[in-house]
Amino acid sequence: MATGFLHPGAMGASLAAACRGSRLWCSDGRSEATRSRAAAAGMEEVASLDQLVERADVLVSVCPPAAASEVARSVSEAGFDGIYVDVNAISPASARAIGKRFARFVDGGVIGPPAKVAGSTRLYLSGESAAEVAALWEGSLLETRLVEGGAGAASAVKICYAAWTKGTAALLLATRALASAAGVEPSLLDEWATSIPGLDAQAEAAAAGNAPKAWRFVGEMEEIAKTFAAFGLPDGFATAAADVYRRMAGFKGTADASLGDVISAVIEP
Amino acid sequence: MATGFLHPGAMGASLAAACRGSRLWCSDGRSEATRSRAAAAGMEEVASLDQLVERADVLVSVCPPAAASEVARSVSEAGFDGIYVDVNAISPASARAIGKRFARFVDGGVIGPPAKVAGSTRLYLSGESAAEVAALWEGSLLETRLVEGGAGAASAVKICYAAWTKGTAALLLATRALASAAGVEPSLLDEWATSIPGLDAQAEAAAAGNAPKAWRFVGEMEEIAKTFAAFGLPDGFATAAADVYRRMAGFKGTADASLGDVISAVIEP
Repeated sequence: MATGFLHPGAMGASLAAACRGSRLWCSDGRSEATRSRAAAAGMEEVASLDQLVERADVLVSVCPPAAASEVARSVSEAGFDGIYVDVNAISPASARAIGKRFARFVDGGVIGPPAKVAGSTRLYLSGESAAEVAALWEGSLLETRLVEGGAGAASAVKICYAAWTKGTAALLLATRALASAAGVEPSLLDEWATSIPGLDAQAEAAAAGNAPKAWRFVGEMEEIAKTFAAFGLPDGFATAAADVYRRMAGFKGTADASLGDVISAVIEP
Repeated sequence: MATGFLHPGAMGASLAAACRGSRLWCSDGRSEATRSRAAAAGMEEVASLDQLVERADVLVSVCPPAAASEVARSVSEAGFDGIYVDVNAISPASARAIGKRFARFVDGGVIGPPAKVAGSTRLYLSGESAAEVAALWEGSLLETRLVEGGAGAASAVKICYAAWTKGTAALLLATRALASAAGVEPSLLDEWATSIPGLDAQAEAAAAGNAPKAWRFVGEMEEIAKTFAAFGLPDGFATAAADVYRRMAGFKGTADASLGDVISAVIEP
């Protein structure tokens, strides 16, 4: 059994490291950082997408949400006939549209950070072959959970989860930005210290934790907005969060963005 | 010193009960419930707005946000020449517009429930006569806090505070509604139980606590949206929250709305 990963970013490499059997990756167009991660995960390199598609029984797509559709298209056009697994943070409708390209499709969603310790990260899976895919991680530090409802259901779990976690982080940063712009930060922080202790620390953590990844959250929040709208629910929480993360996109890869830096960026995009 | 309150709802009566000196209210057009609250707070009844305006040195407006402007207009047109205090949940711009009607204006914002026990509730005040108004509650169970920045600053504190508290409550209910509509509630609740313990209980509390007051939060969230927009920040969190609370407006006055009831109302407005 061989499983291919598109691509071994931090999350993809951690999924590959925990996966049974051969793990393949395709080096065409990828960076040296990706090569290092893939090697550390014990993955086997192939040189082209055609080779990957030919050798893999299962292909797992792990990429920024905005790239998920294009990755699926290229794999489909290369004639892949195994099980295609999309674990990206995309809307149920986007997941189902991708699924239509493949004879065998499993929808997925990852909750938690790249899986390096047991208990940190869960892979939700739905669709006919979900149990078969889950078996690839049996006994590993990555926990798998099956979701009823077919293709789209696992994505819905991830979307709902991120709507709250990433939505509240964006709202908290936008609120701090508003207090700063309105000149009332000291009074707001006094009030929070009185009635919501810990919220200021949460804002500091939201800035430091999300700034480097904010560029990637924009597409995810747009997928979340589409999902709310598809069910007749207000999409403004997610469109506003996308806007906040778009204003923070310049922190990509930085390790030391402060709350003050983030507030300034959100105020003056 | 006589202070008039427009009007002794639950919050207004609690502010009046804690206030020094004579406390007046105007019974014209008010309900028997208001009369009971005013009597319990030890307030003196006057029959008309003209009498209230003539006798009061300070007038405090405590009403739903959507009524704040109209209350101010009627008081101004009645020729009030004392200190007008607006403590409603309105945008800084709305507060300043109201302030222009009066020679002496203090901007306010109340954070916390109706003040019945010490430490629960704070009245933020800004503007030239803020300290004079604060003195009315000195030594009472209502804490006053002065805010730098003139008219609009106290409202900004309240707006920022409610943007987070009422915004997150609405987002949480919308997220539960989305999970329900998408058929993935069991998986989402499993995940929350694993990684965000207490969040499900928070959703239950958000439904029970906010449903009876949701009708009133619509106007407040609209004021919050205006404030974000005025500072060039995304207003979608607040417009979406207004939408959620609008869908919940039918629970006005009910004491026993369940989370399931609220989810159904949010899904099918």
